[in-house]
Amino acid sequence: MTESSLELRYGGSVPPSIAPANEVIALLQRHHSVRSFTAEGIDEATIALIISAAQSAPTSSNMQAWSVIEVRDPAHKAAISVLANDQAFIRAAPVFLIFVADWARNRSIAAQREQPAEGVAFIESTLVAFIDAALAAQNATVAAESLGLGAVYVGAVRNRPEELSDLLGLPPGAFPVVGMALGHPDPADRAGIKPRLPQDVVRHRETYRPIAEGAAEAYEAAVRAYYATQGAQRGWIDTILGRIRSATTLRGREKMRAALENRGLPSR
Amino acid sequence: MTESSLELRYGGSVPPSIAPANEVIALLQRHHSVRSFTAEGIDEATIALIISAAQSAPTSSNMQAWSVIEVRDPAHKAAISVLANDQAFIRAAPVFLIFVADWARNRSIAAQREQPAEGVAFIESTLVAFIDAALAAQNATVAAESLGLGAVYVGAVRNRPEELSDLLGLPPGAFPVVGMALGHPDPADRAGIKPRLPQDVVRHRETYRPIAEGAAEAYEAAVRAYYATQGAQRGWIDTILGRIRSATTLRGREKMRAALENRGLPSR
Repeated sequence: MTESSLELRYGGSVPPSIAPANEVIALLQRHHSVRSFTAEGIDEATIALIISAAQSAPTSSNMQAWSVIEVRDPAHKAAISVLANDQAFIRAAPVFLIFVADWARNRSIAAQREQPAEGVAFIESTLVAFIDAALAAQNATVAAESLGLGAVYVGAVRNRPEELSDLLGLPPGAFPVVGMALGHPDPADRAGIKPRLPQDVVRHRETYRPIAEGAAEAYEAAVRAYYATQGAQRGWIDTILGRIRSATTLRGREKMRAALENRGLPSR
Repeated sequence: MTESSLELRYGGSVPPSIAPANEVIALLQRHHSVRSFTAEGIDEATIALIISAAQSAPTSSNMQAWSVIEVRDPAHKAAISVLANDQAFIRAAPVFLIFVADWARNRSIAAQREQPAEGVAFIESTLVAFIDAALAAQNATVAAESLGLGAVYVGAVRNRPEELSDLLGLPPGAFPVVGMALGHPDPADRAGIKPRLPQDVVRHRETYRPIAEGAAEAYEAAVRAYYATQGAQRGWIDTILGRIRSATTLRGREKMRAALENRGLPSR
């Protein structure tokens, strides 16, 4: 990553003495979400490769409590997109992956052997499966980007998770975590490297330290400057405050607890 | 990744027509957890670089609902290790990172502006923060491995999360997700690439398909063959069945729901 890209990532406030990056770290640092794709497809072998990277991610006690649903059929993709905030880029992407928290598989292995699986009924197990799915998904993102593909996560697969689970044929114990639209990036796309909070805001030494006075405001300015390069007038603070304000700003996800319960992931 | 490494990952059942990997994918595919470290330290700049990669990971709506606590002090590390299943490699690692689901920061930004943050009270928000922390942690793992470091996740930071939160000074709304021991791999360590389930078990086309008959048994044989190379007699099925059998096999984590509630991450 060039110094100027690092400056984009940190909105000008690059940590001092950052070591020179290798190519892997440069790839990680220049990540940006891609929502505009060309018409070019992605072949089977490329997805096999991406999923081999996802499977190579760490998993709690090797339980591999996740699955991925690969959606290519245009009509199926269209139906899914309607449940995920009706986002057009899901339909435009040649491949849409849905990473799934999956206790159904390990439960079925227990059931075949007439063994109990009572531990799965605890919220801890739901968290384990969500973490497993997230780690796998992030390896898939890195692998896809290393191949020149663009990716964007779709949290909106959790907006109407029960209907989506029906559409995907998910058995009890399996639940959508994140979607991922994959495709070849449209070269005309202007999305760039978005600044993140200064490193000393998220990195704590030995113990937690609350955000320093003025740090949020300085970051707000960096985000505004980024959006200005995209021709948009938009900040950070109002966006996050709007997102966490109330139940209604969760767009259906305020019913997540009941949805998990209904789909066999009770949260004791 | 050489063909033989891919065979290790898939226990001999490599998916057909897997495309040749680039170096990034080769790095991802050859991941293995490292729990044996040399005495060599890791400097500040290297951790800054690893955290810059973590911060570059996708985050839901740019909310960056995570933090990382960097622990180097030997006494502090020792106290933490006791709460995390008393694992010696935590004490041996020069740096122990704890990735934290962090709504405390965004809440404090809302509170300073006298704005409500009622959305944070829902289990969906807890899941968002856990996913954000996991995506960041996985980028950190990849970055560390690209630098020749070894890493292992420590889910046991959730065994006694309230005591650990006190030790780390976590405010209400912040909660440990995963630990990560980082160090230079001991060249004498025999841990290798562990086989994962065949790709067609976790990869579903368009809709979910239950695990095929015999697939768990075939994988069991691959795992037994792997552990045999490590001088251990151990399989997969008994391990996962033991892990999910009952509340008591969760090692304290069956109290997770109350712990989240007590630490300001209620799960409505």
